[in-house]
Amino acid sequence: MLNRAVVVASSSSVSLLPNSKPFFFSVKNLSGFRSSSFSGGFIRRISRTPLRMTTPNLTPRAMAAAQQLQNADQLIDSVETFIFDCDGVIWKGDKLIEGVPETLDMLRAKGKRLVFVTNNSTKSRKQYGKKFETLGLNVNEEEIFASSFAAAAYLQSINFPKDKKVYVIGEEGILKELDLAGFQYLGGPDDGKRQIELKPGFLMEHDNDVGAVVVGFDRYFNYYKIQYGTLCIRENPGCLFIATNRDAVTHLTDAQEWAGGGSMVGALVGSCQREPLVVGKPSTFMMDYLADKFGIEKSQICMVGDRLDTDILFGQNGGCKTLLVLSGVTSISMLESPDNKIQPDFYTSKISDFLSLKAANV
Amino acid sequence: MLNRAVVVASSSSVSLLPNSKPFFFSVKNLSGFRSSSFSGGFIRRISRTPLRMTTPNLTPRAMAAAQQLQNADQLIDSVETFIFDCDGVIWKGDKLIEGVPETLDMLRAKGKRLVFVTNNSTKSRKQYGKKFETLGLNVNEEEIFASSFAAAAYLQSINFPKDKKVYVIGEEGILKELDLAGFQYLGGPDDGKRQIELKPGFLMEHDNDVGAVVVGFDRYFNYYKIQYGTLCIRENPGCLFIATNRDAVTHLTDAQEWAGGGSMVGALVGSCQREPLVVGKPSTFMMDYLADKFGIEKSQICMVGDRLDTDILFGQNGGCKTLLVLSGVTSISMLESPDNKIQPDFYTSKISDFLSLKAANV
Repeated sequence: MLNRAVVVASSSSVSLLPNSKPFFFSVKNLSGFRSSSFSGGFIRRISRTPLRMTTPNLTPRAMAAAQQLQNADQLIDSVETFIFDCDGVIWKGDKLIEGVPETLDMLRAKGKRLVFVTNNSTKSRKQYGKKFETLGLNVNEEEIFASSFAAAAYLQSINFPKDKKVYVIGEEGILKELDLAGFQYLGGPDDGKRQIELKPGFLMEHDNDVGAVVVGFDRYFNYYKIQYGTLCIRENPGCLFIATNRDAVTHLTDAQEWAGGGSMVGALVGSCQREPLVVGKPSTFMMDYLADKFGIEKSQICMVGDRLDTDILFGQNGGCKTLLVLSGVTSISMLESPDNKIQPDFYTSKISDFLSLKAANV
Repeated sequence: MLNRAVVVASSSSVSLLPNSKPFFFSVKNLSGFRSSSFSGGFIRRISRTPLRMTTPNLTPRAMAAAQQLQNADQLIDSVETFIFDCDGVIWKGDKLIEGVPETLDMLRAKGKRLVFVTNNSTKSRKQYGKKFETLGLNVNEEEIFASSFAAAAYLQSINFPKDKKVYVIGEEGILKELDLAGFQYLGGPDDGKRQIELKPGFLMEHDNDVGAVVVGFDRYFNYYKIQYGTLCIRENPGCLFIATNRDAVTHLTDAQEWAGGGSMVGALVGSCQREPLVVGKPSTFMMDYLADKFGIEKSQICMVGDRLDTDILFGQNGGCKTLLVLSGVTSISMLESPDNKIQPDFYTSKISDFLSLKAANV
């Protein structure tokens, strides 16, 4: 597998990237995963070494200024797979973004593979499938990769023992995916009702068979969960600390920005003084998983998202082409700010621009 | 004030520190506080610039191996003030450590000033005074500096406006100290019962008059508090983010280690993507406050504690002599581990060694 950890920008992208030069970079270094001799799982490059996502490396590509998308057909023709972030790209809260169904239909008609990736771990793939259906989109649950699924897929990839247990700080999506993957778990929303006893000498017991703590967004977060997860990570030898994501913001409702999964993860980092292994964006775990599962070359993928520090960094860390849409949280002034160090290959206002930005219109 | 920010090791300490050389260091750089032209408060060196405590600088003193204390009288004679950490030094949980009352009496008889400092913010100074009394110790509440008090003292030091409010993530100690200092506040244990509504379009209102969020250990921590604090810090212009401490561990009971205030602070760091201003150890705020209040030279202080990364670093950051006691969380093997980069000037098993380690016994 190691030879796949070095990727060269394909020459087909040169005409689309006039300012870029061919470059080499190591996915191994960018993702924070270390190469490993482990070969039991289906993603053999992934080891148990925790990711350190706090200071992501920037690729040379990230430093060239983004180009406004002008010839959508050329981009579409140059890739085989589109990975779409959901919130801010496909929908905003509970509302579909204009022109999305027609755009997805057009891409499918051209034979493109479509994949939908979200850091939101509160729902399972199946529950996300229903959301797509409700919005009138024809998306198969096999095309959906939520970070809840990524947590279970990661545990499968390392052959996490079935006689060990997972302690979950998070919501139903994680529990459902662990269930489907055949893992034993405890915690989740139920522990939201628990409190610690305050009497002198009280000791909180914890299950010594917990071999992984998975932390995602949890609106029922409390001190009981912090202490339970901390005890497992600190005291169970070899216990993994897995984060679905470290997003500062999530979209519980579209009326305001809500504190995201980064809060729950930050709380455990504060008590365990250990960094988690992140399976959601911008870590490349899901990208590696997709590339292996579907046998896709990463240079043949275009990552489409509305966030620079998760979506675009995720695409770049994975060695993909990247397209920023301005239909979500990032504005053109944020993209062009001197403080912004992450530049996508292209940007455009929304994905339905794919329908209008034909070669003839340039 | 600026000239006081450069401290030279006093020559009187040379005989006690055979391996050390006189050195210069800047308290300004070590503490992370920036010097400021602000002159309204009683601690004029402190500005609103957030501390960055994640990579504390090590003083040259910290790198010389600790000496086992052999001549207690020489150390006692060389300083005017002893600052004691409480848990692991004076008591363990609810039990007084052997020989403490006699040791404190001896130091008082020799005319030494005694100060008791704790990062625990759950109690006020008054409540701590009762704990000392219950344990049979004669300690005045003016001698006690808990991080709950430090939060209120910091706000006073910057002339925090009395028409602004403080949102508290923490327990009663912080509320009581804010009350005594005349500040308006909201939050605290009461918000532990609150939940967010999950209906579509829901927006959490927050008070635009909140000008500071104070975060300390909080066993009633929940998502409501995370979101409320995050909204204030993100959306109220100039809102301060103050942490009483970032301790990974606290001692709710002595039956086990409990996740500490670092969890609650880590959660807010995760959602706000901002570092807090820490008023507890190892930041030098309390040391600066004490030095100003009592007019003590910092080289005339000996900090006595059981933790390297809070107590000893606190003493070193402040330019004091440091004594590690092994009656708390640090063992001799932890002190001597090659991984440990923080070396106190001296170490001994417990403070009552002051009574036996006379010059005649050396």
